[in-house]
Amino acid sequence: MNNFIFQNPTKLVFGKGQIARLSALVPKERKIMVTFGGGSVKRNGVYEQVKEALKEHNYIEFWGIEPNPAVETLRKAIAQCKEENVDFLLAVGGGSVLDGTKLIAAGVCTDTDAWDIVLKGRADKSIPFASVMTLPATGSEMNSGAVISRRETQEKFAFYTRYPEFSILDPEVTYSLPANQIAAGLTDIYVHVLEQYMTTAGQSRVMDRWAEGLLLTVLEIAPKIKENQHDYATMADFMLTATMALNDFISMGVTQDWCTHMIGHELTALHGITHGASLAIVMPATMRVLREQKRSKLLQYADRIFHVEASTEDERIEMAIEKTEEFFRSLGLATRLSEVGIGDDTIETVAKRFNESGVAYGEAGNVTGDVARKILQAAK
Amino acid sequence: MNNFIFQNPTKLVFGKGQIARLSALVPKERKIMVTFGGGSVKRNGVYEQVKEALKEHNYIEFWGIEPNPAVETLRKAIAQCKEENVDFLLAVGGGSVLDGTKLIAAGVCTDTDAWDIVLKGRADKSIPFASVMTLPATGSEMNSGAVISRRETQEKFAFYTRYPEFSILDPEVTYSLPANQIAAGLTDIYVHVLEQYMTTAGQSRVMDRWAEGLLLTVLEIAPKIKENQHDYATMADFMLTATMALNDFISMGVTQDWCTHMIGHELTALHGITHGASLAIVMPATMRVLREQKRSKLLQYADRIFHVEASTEDERIEMAIEKTEEFFRSLGLATRLSEVGIGDDTIETVAKRFNESGVAYGEAGNVTGDVARKILQAAK
Repeated sequence: MNNFIFQNPTKLVFGKGQIARLSALVPKERKIMVTFGGGSVKRNGVYEQVKEALKEHNYIEFWGIEPNPAVETLRKAIAQCKEENVDFLLAVGGGSVLDGTKLIAAGVCTDTDAWDIVLKGRADKSIPFASVMTLPATGSEMNSGAVISRRETQEKFAFYTRYPEFSILDPEVTYSLPANQIAAGLTDIYVHVLEQYMTTAGQSRVMDRWAEGLLLTVLEIAPKIKENQHDYATMADFMLTATMALNDFISMGVTQDWCTHMIGHELTALHGITHGASLAIVMPATMRVLREQKRSKLLQYADRIFHVEASTEDERIEMAIEKTEEFFRSLGLATRLSEVGIGDDTIETVAKRFNESGVAYGEAGNVTGDVARKILQAAK
Repeated sequence: MNNFIFQNPTKLVFGKGQIARLSALVPKERKIMVTFGGGSVKRNGVYEQVKEALKEHNYIEFWGIEPNPAVETLRKAIAQCKEENVDFLLAVGGGSVLDGTKLIAAGVCTDTDAWDIVLKGRADKSIPFASVMTLPATGSEMNSGAVISRRETQEKFAFYTRYPEFSILDPEVTYSLPANQIAAGLTDIYVHVLEQYMTTAGQSRVMDRWAEGLLLTVLEIAPKIKENQHDYATMADFMLTATMALNDFISMGVTQDWCTHMIGHELTALHGITHGASLAIVMPATMRVLREQKRSKLLQYADRIFHVEASTEDERIEMAIEKTEEFFRSLGLATRLSEVGIGDDTIETVAKRFNESGVAYGEAGNVTGDVARKILQAAK
């Protein structure tokens, strides 16, 4: 096990009816900005619950943080916060609304342009923020990361900042999610776990078992959600799994990969493809191209997740990768670039961007543009 | 899943050589008391490392916090802290030293007698404290609980307080632990998990999988530790498992039991039997007596932990309980009261204490003195 330091101070407030607790959780002496996405919270009752809970608070609303939140939008929110002396932010929505809010919270504290904070990779200062999460997927509700896009240059990068003060997760708000968001969410969760798990075997028994527990949970609940999206127990499992998949709980002392995410971000930045959908295409190809490097863990994955039986190791690995791809397809997602109209031009653009950045990604720091090209070729 | 609120702010500093980080982690402007047990830290090099790291700090030492820390000892430390205006405590030792330190930290803030804090069950105030943990077992390094004994009345109770500011876990300090402490530690960890797991099935897929991951880890590492107590990877797994077994990470939204602990505490209070050793005797009997109530989870446990095969459910349950008892015996521990010289007198005393307390323990609140008697009779 590698040395590590772990600390996650976010308060998780989980369950039916918990949105009402906002009235006590959000500090009354602060000037609040409540941030939203496109308006689904007005249709599922969340907006009314938030309004009721905050009726004695001093707050303004900011609407329109889009999927893959754009720095162009967030700059406006930062300017408004500064004008109105906002000193606490509450994100109400999915991971994009919260990610965007993380950048607003950092942007308020500086005269630096918001995109420069993203490029730096880490915010020096931030006002406190919290969330009411409506879409189980990104794990942003209990981590310090955020991914921001810049429309004018078709770029998408992550940066790190403080943790949310608290996040409220009420599984009932997921009853009305559209099927494509659930599919992308389940994929995002599954791949978050794989990014922390599909590395080198034997680093930590506990972290391996916990990652496997999340993978098995996603595989179990996916068909059940399709059957009945109003089953509280299943949707609660869905919501808790999303949070636990990316809150540092399964990454203690183990190496991580994240090259699938880095490549997926490029596909989203260049083609607007949904984040989870990009991962469904890239992940199986990453496992194929890096199979020798990840051999020990691929075998463990084949055994513990899919219980595959075959005479050779290579067959077992191939079967596990196929089952992974099948799972994404069972969610209704494409797993090949050709299905979403992405061809060699984009592959070359991604390879060029990676090579020019001078950074090589992945657990071994060997995913250069040339390796990214191989991965995307394998995903054709 | 039940509604829950989770927040665990402790910073975990894990790995080789991390004790040196004390110099930055312990606040320099505070007056520190460093607390110790009986002196094993002088033999394993931990004391020298702590001294070196704190050479620029203003601290006093308090020695002699015993296993099952006694309020009689802790009162002396509280008095000394008050005299010397101590406002930060650092526990260096095992769970008993840290548990005792938690009571000192609370006792400093009040004129109430320390035992009354324990009886109340919760400390209203506490100065901050931290730990260098030398014995993987209690999980005290990342939770808010502590168990304190009162020698003069042969009582032992838990109370809750703030979380440690940080805990340093260096697996190398476990290389020199005596075999009986390792056996008791592994048992304590295993039973901590069972207290949160062996309830009713189907409450949370993730919590079930994570608890099972810890149980499987303990079963896997126990024989390896016996083979080679100097294998870093194994001892790191041991140490991380202890912390994760009792830091609220596997109890989100699920019912808990703890009746085995409550009964075990009585055996320790009345006979001085080591905590982990008391659990090895009580746990199999608890599973036998409450098998109908815990039927669904016992079957899941039989299947996922021991993969037992038998034609009837009852056989599978009995086999799983037998395997649990066998595991404790494989560690060299007694699993029957008769082996440790405890007879009917003590059983009656425990039953009487439980009945007189008016509190019934366990997940269903049905473990009265009469049920405790049945459990202890089954452990004869």
